[in-house]
Amino acid sequence: MSVELKWLKDGTITSAKGFLAGATYSGIRTYTEDKLDLGIISSESPCTVAGTFTTNQIKSPSVVLDQRRVASGRAQAIIINSGIANACVGDQGMTDALEMAELAAKHLDIDPELVLACSTGLIGVELPMALIRSGVPKVQLTADVNGGHALGRAIRTTDTISKEFAVSFDVGGNTYLLGGIAKGSGMVHPNMATMLAFMTTDAPVEQQFLQEALSKSVDSSFNMITVDGDTSTNDSVIIMANGAAGGDTITSGSPGEEAFRQALNEVSIALAREIARDGEGASKLIQVTVEGAVTESDARAAARAVAASTLVKSAVHGGDPNWGRIMVALGYSGAELEESHVALYISDVCIMEEGRPIPYFKDAVVLTMSGPEISLRLNLNLGDGSATAWGCDISEEYVTFNSAYTT
Amino acid sequence: MSVELKWLKDGTITSAKGFLAGATYSGIRTYTEDKLDLGIISSESPCTVAGTFTTNQIKSPSVVLDQRRVASGRAQAIIINSGIANACVGDQGMTDALEMAELAAKHLDIDPELVLACSTGLIGVELPMALIRSGVPKVQLTADVNGGHALGRAIRTTDTISKEFAVSFDVGGNTYLLGGIAKGSGMVHPNMATMLAFMTTDAPVEQQFLQEALSKSVDSSFNMITVDGDTSTNDSVIIMANGAAGGDTITSGSPGEEAFRQALNEVSIALAREIARDGEGASKLIQVTVEGAVTESDARAAARAVAASTLVKSAVHGGDPNWGRIMVALGYSGAELEESHVALYISDVCIMEEGRPIPYFKDAVVLTMSGPEISLRLNLNLGDGSATAWGCDISEEYVTFNSAYTT
Repeated sequence: MSVELKWLKDGTITSAKGFLAGATYSGIRTYTEDKLDLGIISSESPCTVAGTFTTNQIKSPSVVLDQRRVASGRAQAIIINSGIANACVGDQGMTDALEMAELAAKHLDIDPELVLACSTGLIGVELPMALIRSGVPKVQLTADVNGGHALGRAIRTTDTISKEFAVSFDVGGNTYLLGGIAKGSGMVHPNMATMLAFMTTDAPVEQQFLQEALSKSVDSSFNMITVDGDTSTNDSVIIMANGAAGGDTITSGSPGEEAFRQALNEVSIALAREIARDGEGASKLIQVTVEGAVTESDARAAARAVAASTLVKSAVHGGDPNWGRIMVALGYSGAELEESHVALYISDVCIMEEGRPIPYFKDAVVLTMSGPEISLRLNLNLGDGSATAWGCDISEEYVTFNSAYTT
Repeated sequence: MSVELKWLKDGTITSAKGFLAGATYSGIRTYTEDKLDLGIISSESPCTVAGTFTTNQIKSPSVVLDQRRVASGRAQAIIINSGIANACVGDQGMTDALEMAELAAKHLDIDPELVLACSTGLIGVELPMALIRSGVPKVQLTADVNGGHALGRAIRTTDTISKEFAVSFDVGGNTYLLGGIAKGSGMVHPNMATMLAFMTTDAPVEQQFLQEALSKSVDSSFNMITVDGDTSTNDSVIIMANGAAGGDTITSGSPGEEAFRQALNEVSIALAREIARDGEGASKLIQVTVEGAVTESDARAAARAVAASTLVKSAVHGGDPNWGRIMVALGYSGAELEESHVALYISDVCIMEEGRPIPYFKDAVVLTMSGPEISLRLNLNLGDGSATAWGCDISEEYVTFNSAYTT
């Protein structure tokens, strides 16, 4: 069942009713004009909350704190800094995460237990709490798009653009908004990477359903992007629902279920695609669709293996239809396959059928590969499983950039 | 029990008695001065043989043929071409692999069933059999080091140097030689990559023991190297033992067991390290040792994850002691760990203890990282499992190179 979603022209995390955001420059990061590094998103009233977090065993204490608070089911605000990740710093990390949340609670005059804290940036460096203490009171929260845009900028690290989207959807005469912001760039890989995404909605959503819908949505959006194969200590996707737009609570089986799921999926995929496109040093978005797999899990594994292959990324960077590398990645993905059944399309041009290359006009394919988005499609012709993954090309700039990050 | 091994000064695959090798330029690859692209290694008498092959589901038919023939336990020669991989070409691939073996058998006047065939290079292109047919008779095999050196060159693709080693070891008054050659470069990753390694020994070795010893040795050598995370369609490690140096058959429990295992391990590790060091565009060898893991399998997973991390590789390229990335890779490796137990050493300088960074003289570490070999050592302080993996840095040249491989 398809639902009509409307994309907002200037949508962001404050598009939904009752949410305010703002950011400031507190000095955590090197100063440049217009730099912001500390911000808050807050709801006028407590929300139901859901989150998915990094699977890395080395976790920022901020993530540990947020997992605990999300488990309570309720939250009202999130404070976020960029520049320093608050990871690998021993016990001080939890002390600082707790204080960050408390500083935000005091500034907003709300219960500290309802505040989450997120950090992104360098690992192994303690948070400069003096700067954060003086920074928090300077955060001016507003309910208009400018508040959301400021927060969208403040969470960026090596991102070159802000990622912000919002959609509206109708349920039984009520119009709801769901919007979000995200940051990605380096170290982005399936199963969460130094990737933060925050979403808000003014729909009233039951907490268990919110968590289940978020987890499912993350599996086919943020968990299907890859920049460099590394997963980080801080990755988090958090959504807050404040019910400010009224109406009946949306839950599993309720009239609004499908529309809400679709809004959540679309915003998640839009944010995830922008993260992949804006990978460090990237110039092209690679979309890999695998169809005809025996299971969806096989399709996911295959799509991610191809999108994550450094050799495929290099070939795409050079606009080189070196499809052998795609087959190699498919072969080690673990997905069940029969070489003699595989078909491959680059930008909808069939390159391979029944496991063998077929004659194609190479210049035409090279030309389509020179665009900003490249689509690779594999049909395993074995079953009904399908999945899509997103990645980016790897460029000389990626290496240059990551060769000198701390020194 | 340690055994005395002697490294030969100019050791290669023909160092062992009774083995001959040679190579020619047949025209498969673009001509440049001194280019060789087709060669043969042969024994004066049939050998026991063992092999380990790629785990990629997309396999070259040459690999399928070799697996079948190695399973018979006996072989006498291997014909190898570089330039074209004989993979993803449909049924023609097996036809060509069989013909290649037959051409070599005819040239050497031996049983075709005793000949293996290996290919490395571009995927999806059929072998130019006319060139191979005219090339094989031109291969002049010699028993001196020049024959081995020629073959060592002929199997290279984007390798910048040949990889050749040999050791001698004594068992009960007999002196045996074990030598080998290998090629690696791009697409090299644990569990076999476009990586070929061939070893010979004049020791008499029982076949089942030879296979078991090779598999074990490959697990801690070729399977512990990583260049770019991609595993290929053609990876093979093959050893032939002809017994030409006389003495009692070496087998499990026999007096020569330990010496043979050690010779095999050392040559395998030496070849594997050279493959890692010579990774496409690489300028530094990275050695990652993980100690104190709960199991050896955990140690292996952790060492390989760190060596394979694109961000770690980038940091090493820039001589940047950005140890947070090492912790991140450790965290997603799947190895059991307690953050508060982990110690990390870069070039033997302790960077981290009990999961926390400790003060160190950064300039000193940066200086040691400017050398051609960088050692990373992690102690998980949980158990006795240990393992070592080898990788290389990633450079701008890697990307440039792989952006334009076929176009």
